[in-house]
Amino acid sequence: MTDYTIKELTDMVRAFCGERDWDQFHNPKDLAIGISTEANELLDIFRFKNAEEMMGLFKEPKQREHIEEELADVLFFVLRFAQMNNIELKHALETKIEKNAKKYPVEQAKGQNKKYNEF
Amino acid sequence: MTDYTIKELTDMVRAFCGERDWDQFHNPKDLAIGISTEANELLDIFRFKNAEEMMGLFKEPKQREHIEEELADVLFFVLRFAQMNNIELKHALETKIEKNAKKYPVEQAKGQNKKYNEF
Amino acid sequence: MTDYTIKELTDMVRAFCGERDWDQFHNPKDLAIGISTEANELLDIFRFKNAEEMMGLFKEPKQREHIEEELADVLFFVLRFAQMNNIELKHALETKIEKNAKKYPVEQAKGQNKKYNEF
Amino acid sequence: MTDYTIKELTDMVRAFCGERDWDQFHNPKDLAIGISTEANELLDIFRFKNAEEMMGLFKEPKQREHIEEELADVLFFVLRFAQMNNIELKHALETKIEKNAKKYPVEQAKGQNKKYNEF
Repeated sequence: MTDYTIKELTDMVRAFCGERDWDQFHNPKDLAIGISTEANELLDIFRFKNAEEMMGLFKEPKQREHIEEELADVLFFVLRFAQMNNIELKHALETKIEKNAKKYPVEQAKGQNKKYNEF
Repeated sequence: MTDYTIKELTDMVRAFCGERDWDQFHNPKDLAIGISTEANELLDIFRFKNAEEMMGLFKEPKQREHIEEELADVLFFVLRFAQMNNIELKHALETKIEKNAKKYPVEQAKGQNKKYNEF
Repeated sequence: MTDYTIKELTDMVRAFCGERDWDQFHNPKDLAIGISTEANELLDIFRFKNAEEMMGLFKEPKQREHIEEELADVLFFVLRFAQMNNIELKHALETKIEKNAKKYPVEQAKGQNKKYNEF
Repeated sequence: MTDYTIKELTDMVRAFCGERDWDQFHNPKDLAIGISTEANELLDIFRFKNAEEMMGLFKEPKQREHIEEELADVLFFVLRFAQMNNIELKHALETKIEKNAKKYPVEQAKGQNKKYNEF
């Protein structure tokens, strides 16, 4: 198993879109729409499902594949958004995690499901 | 500049959540909600903005930082969803891109903004 | 208590936007973004919350007010989308409910949380 | 043409769900998911579309019907969310519009596409 880097995955996405001449459609608003609509296709799978039913979905190969595909669609648009707008994802993620570490200090956040603004 | 692998980024996310004892809240439905809500915070930045205004946002350091943070939030939950549910993102993305390559053959899709089901 | 009609509520929304000269920004894509982003602000309130915590939110006046405001924001954009694009909401809703009644016959759908395409 | 009141539409939605014994699934989180996922099915129709293409969609009867159905799905869940949680939509909308009128005074908001927090 090879573990690809963000750059390698981004190159796959860039090549796919480049061959199809899709840069012209991939402005920030429409790519953000892409992330949201794909995220909601993922979310839709779990609508009205309880914990047990959700576990069942992951055990059923066709349903698991469906879930993986919708998650991949979200990741596709995240990578594409970053690539088109020169965002280095590793840097952005590290920066955000450091910021969240201050917002959610371990001693306060431990075992808590509060949101940022609720602390 | 080091380019991290998906595994390395996932380890950062897992460590962050592990320290805070958040596994108990991170079921598939709520993580999918996380992806959708963060995607919409990103989308919200571009609401009612035209092409020129969007370009302006990326040039303004504070606005660019805001955009990068929201995108990082989406990636955080994508990585977390994959980690909690044993999804190998690189494999999922490759599989989906191969599938899309068949759905959108270059000769048909080139320069077209049609959706899958419209071809 | 007076119960307003869809038309009366729509007139309120139209007047609010008209006074501010907002027709120019309210194209279908951006209004649909409005519905999605406001829906996700509502959804965000329930992220990681269990049944008991959700009940608690509705009992706490400030939280209830927050929930009502986010729901109102969604309705605002639904009414505005319909008004700008000449959609008669009552007709659209009736038509969709009739269609769903065929998709989800009572005898099959009763007590089932299946989605349309799963029957 | 009769113009229904919010109450009349809500009664239709309540009856539809009641017959199918769906109260058990319609907790606030899953109904908010319903609003978000349906909103994104509407949004998806406009993804990557320019102004002219969007106008074309509304002129094509099958596409217009599709748009109306997705909007109706959003409204369905908005009405259902309100009904299940004892929210009076007319009151909630009036209250929110009054609040927004203060946040967006006509003289400042006129012809501006700024968000609340940007004024």
